[in-house]
Amino acid sequence: MTGTPPWTCGTLPKPISSSTPNHSLPHGRLGPLYRVRRSTANLDSVLRPRPGGCLSPTDPQRRSARPDTGSATPVRADIIAAATRVFSERGYHAASMSEIAAAVGMRKPSLYHHVRRKEDLLFAIHEQMIDELIAEMMRIVGSSATPAEKVAATLRSAMGFVARHRDGVTVFLAEHRSVGGERWNELVIKRDFYEQMLHRVLTEGREGGAFVDVPPAIAAKALLAMANWGYTWFQPGGPLTAEEVAETFARIALRGLEVR
Amino acid sequence: MTGTPPWTCGTLPKPISSSTPNHSLPHGRLGPLYRVRRSTANLDSVLRPRPGGCLSPTDPQRRSARPDTGSATPVRADIIAAATRVFSERGYHAASMSEIAAAVGMRKPSLYHHVRRKEDLLFAIHEQMIDELIAEMMRIVGSSATPAEKVAATLRSAMGFVARHRDGVTVFLAEHRSVGGERWNELVIKRDFYEQMLHRVLTEGREGGAFVDVPPAIAAKALLAMANWGYTWFQPGGPLTAEEVAETFARIALRGLEVR
Repeated sequence: MTGTPPWTCGTLPKPISSSTPNHSLPHGRLGPLYRVRRSTANLDSVLRPRPGGCLSPTDPQRRSARPDTGSATPVRADIIAAATRVFSERGYHAASMSEIAAAVGMRKPSLYHHVRRKEDLLFAIHEQMIDELIAEMMRIVGSSATPAEKVAATLRSAMGFVARHRDGVTVFLAEHRSVGGERWNELVIKRDFYEQMLHRVLTEGREGGAFVDVPPAIAAKALLAMANWGYTWFQPGGPLTAEEVAETFARIALRGLEVR
Repeated sequence: MTGTPPWTCGTLPKPISSSTPNHSLPHGRLGPLYRVRRSTANLDSVLRPRPGGCLSPTDPQRRSARPDTGSATPVRADIIAAATRVFSERGYHAASMSEIAAAVGMRKPSLYHHVRRKEDLLFAIHEQMIDELIAEMMRIVGSSATPAEKVAATLRSAMGFVARHRDGVTVFLAEHRSVGGERWNELVIKRDFYEQMLHRVLTEGREGGAFVDVPPAIAAKALLAMANWGYTWFQPGGPLTAEEVAETFARIALRGLEVR
């Protein structure tokens, strides 16, 4: 992780052609990934060329508008790490600021010098997770690999992420009900940006004749689900590495998708 | 749902042959589905023939041992339904017994005549969900369909379940940290029983030459993940029905698995 959001520089993926059938998914009452309506969250509205040819999943006004944060100063990495462990083990609601302070080796009043409230820590964890996922996906999408290679790389990246950030991914995928307001809209846009990069890979594979004609939006959900669900069962240090699991996922997915 | 657990009568599936490679998944620090160690939770130890040729995923001693329940009387269906809505909307920790009482149209003291504590409601919801899933899966596994047809039927069943029990599935898949003790062990065994029925279908397909040689345990995780993840995004009444989504999942999964 660097201080610079990973998407501020990158290669602009080709837009999905307007002839692509609209397989967009239902909105409305949305689950963890989509607490707010996704009306603005499609790749084409989100990928805005900026001066210097860089990308942003959010516009500059939105990025600077953080009314809930209370501070422009990033939360210290060791505090985020401690909060991640505590939230993952105890659950966000059950965890207390006292426990987080103890985990980071400070007293509770000192913790409040760094963080205004527990929700700010949850937000920081979510942001850290999605920023890293986007950075990896940008590299995959921007490479010269074939769509099939990009699908396999996405599954390796996502399973590796689950294995590497066990606690962080648990918080990211399981603790979602408590983030609200403008900041959450920003996270939703980033999560959609991540998913739509895979959607675009699948669309390109289909339009180029490499993949069979299945709705890319549903296929993207199916592929990401395989890796995401790993947070419920994958055991780092267990008999199977994340690479081995991802290889099986990719084998099923690519046999399932590729035209032969 | 009937009062009789669905697995007490059924067809005993063929045992997985002892020559089957052991693709069992790692134990240890386990996610939501596996809060406790799964040492006893494999299909062969769990499927016990009982007098009359019936099955049980738990032995009779375990089923009658509910030290945490406080009562052998089942919780009233309307109370479970109200708790399901409230837990799904507010989150288990944030929800109060007062809110549940209001949702069911009674005062809080009256609710305590029916339920000793909030956790009992969470347990009842989890049990109701897994019992229905097991009942459906037993029908699929016990049918004369081919392994490929059983895989497609499993995906239809699981996506249909997600669509039908929107709130219940949210509680079942997202609210898991707060159930503890002996009762939770029982739920873990039932969840494993469900998953291992699909594992067995995949093993039979592989041994019979219908499916390619991918580890059935990982393939089972991949397939169930597709449907389970639906709880985060699927919108009943949206542009796609659960059947249509399941059809795409099955197309990818079966193209991925079937020998051609």
